[in-house]
Amino acid sequence: MAQNIYDDPQFFVGYSGLRRSVEGLAGAPEWPALKALLPDLTGRRVVDLGCGFGWFCRFAREAGAGEVLGLDLSENMLARAREMASDPAITYRRADLEALELPVASFDLAYSSLAFHYVENLSGLLATIARALVPGGRLVFSAEHPIYTAPRRPGWTVDSDGHKSWPVDHYLAEGPRRTNWFAEGVVKQHRTIGAYLNLLVSAGFTVSHLEEWGPSQAQIAVQPELAEERERPMFFIVAVERR
Amino acid sequence: MAQNIYDDPQFFVGYSGLRRSVEGLAGAPEWPALKALLPDLTGRRVVDLGCGFGWFCRFAREAGAGEVLGLDLSENMLARAREMASDPAITYRRADLEALELPVASFDLAYSSLAFHYVENLSGLLATIARALVPGGRLVFSAEHPIYTAPRRPGWTVDSDGHKSWPVDHYLAEGPRRTNWFAEGVVKQHRTIGAYLNLLVSAGFTVSHLEEWGPSQAQIAVQPELAEERERPMFFIVAVERR
Repeated sequence: MAQNIYDDPQFFVGYSGLRRSVEGLAGAPEWPALKALLPDLTGRRVVDLGCGFGWFCRFAREAGAGEVLGLDLSENMLARAREMASDPAITYRRADLEALELPVASFDLAYSSLAFHYVENLSGLLATIARALVPGGRLVFSAEHPIYTAPRRPGWTVDSDGHKSWPVDHYLAEGPRRTNWFAEGVVKQHRTIGAYLNLLVSAGFTVSHLEEWGPSQAQIAVQPELAEERERPMFFIVAVERR
Repeated sequence: MAQNIYDDPQFFVGYSGLRRSVEGLAGAPEWPALKALLPDLTGRRVVDLGCGFGWFCRFAREAGAGEVLGLDLSENMLARAREMASDPAITYRRADLEALELPVASFDLAYSSLAFHYVENLSGLLATIARALVPGGRLVFSAEHPIYTAPRRPGWTVDSDGHKSWPVDHYLAEGPRRTNWFAEGVVKQHRTIGAYLNLLVSAGFTVSHLEEWGPSQAQIAVQPELAEERERPMFFIVAVERR
């Protein structure tokens, strides 16, 4: 079973205070890039893997989706998601992405925001998603970029001239990374971009788009603290289609 | 027209002394990874973009390829390639990858080793390659990894404890990078992995494989100085098929 860090009280309080938790999709600067990769949602059956507070599930319904299934391991997050929506077409269900079961050919879109880098058995999960999608169905997801997850000491290095850089090491050493983010010992799975893409291809997907996300100049003008995200990507975003 | 740094006398002397120049494919540690992505070459028509001394063209013929076309901008390299092979099925021709023309549907395999990161008009080149391949034809190439090309100061940082890391910055700032490698002012084009893949998809290719290359433990046992290449990838390798 996956680590359920989102139900750690200290973590949950910290995470709940993030702009993306309070403001939802509008508070996530990578959301416009993800949104641009979505198909027309009208009447589509959608599954959100790691739905958190359910912001995307509600967005999908507002954009015309049919049935929406939101999955998360965290009881805290599911409880909050259920509080915030009374839409009978949205179902929130507890699920462990390490051992997920989904009905075959039942979804047109699978979506996941910043969850896959927690998953150890990614090949199993991708096979499940591929089976659950109809042919031509789309998977759009974001995950932490391996440049961000690789380092032994993830954090900016500042030169004597004030110049920031991100010290990459251990990039090709795939496997768990323990970090302290709102709680101690949060475990992420570090994988290269190549590993993600090859697992997707093996699972029966065709790659449509890969974006190593950074903020636009317009976003930096509004939120200058985002500028450093152009120095090294924190996230990447992928769109693939089931063959 | 592309910068013709390989015909700079100082550069050419330096480059000619590299292990990969002296020993050929066996002297390039990423060659086994490239070779693993090649189709059966028997009877295949092959074009090598940036053929250098012609090592791959000769390999392709030895592996059973039919007609082989080796293209390079450097007269020095083409002269050396012609000296080393008298195979009438290999043609060496001077060509600028910035403005390449190739006959339509005339090749089964396009190959390129460490040349694409010099090309500014990569979308034009990929469109030319796509047209020149038959449907189902394959493009296999290596290029310098954006982690390697991004930094303002490309080079290892060594901590007080002797630990090495690679200071990534400017990753999302695509465009030219001037470096000093055997000669001053060698110009490379820095692009994200995402940019490479999206250009390939737009040009009509389906992504088969992406590898961010690092040496195997067996290679490190023989050449311990390769170990640092596992800290951050210097190259990436792609195989795609023309749709």
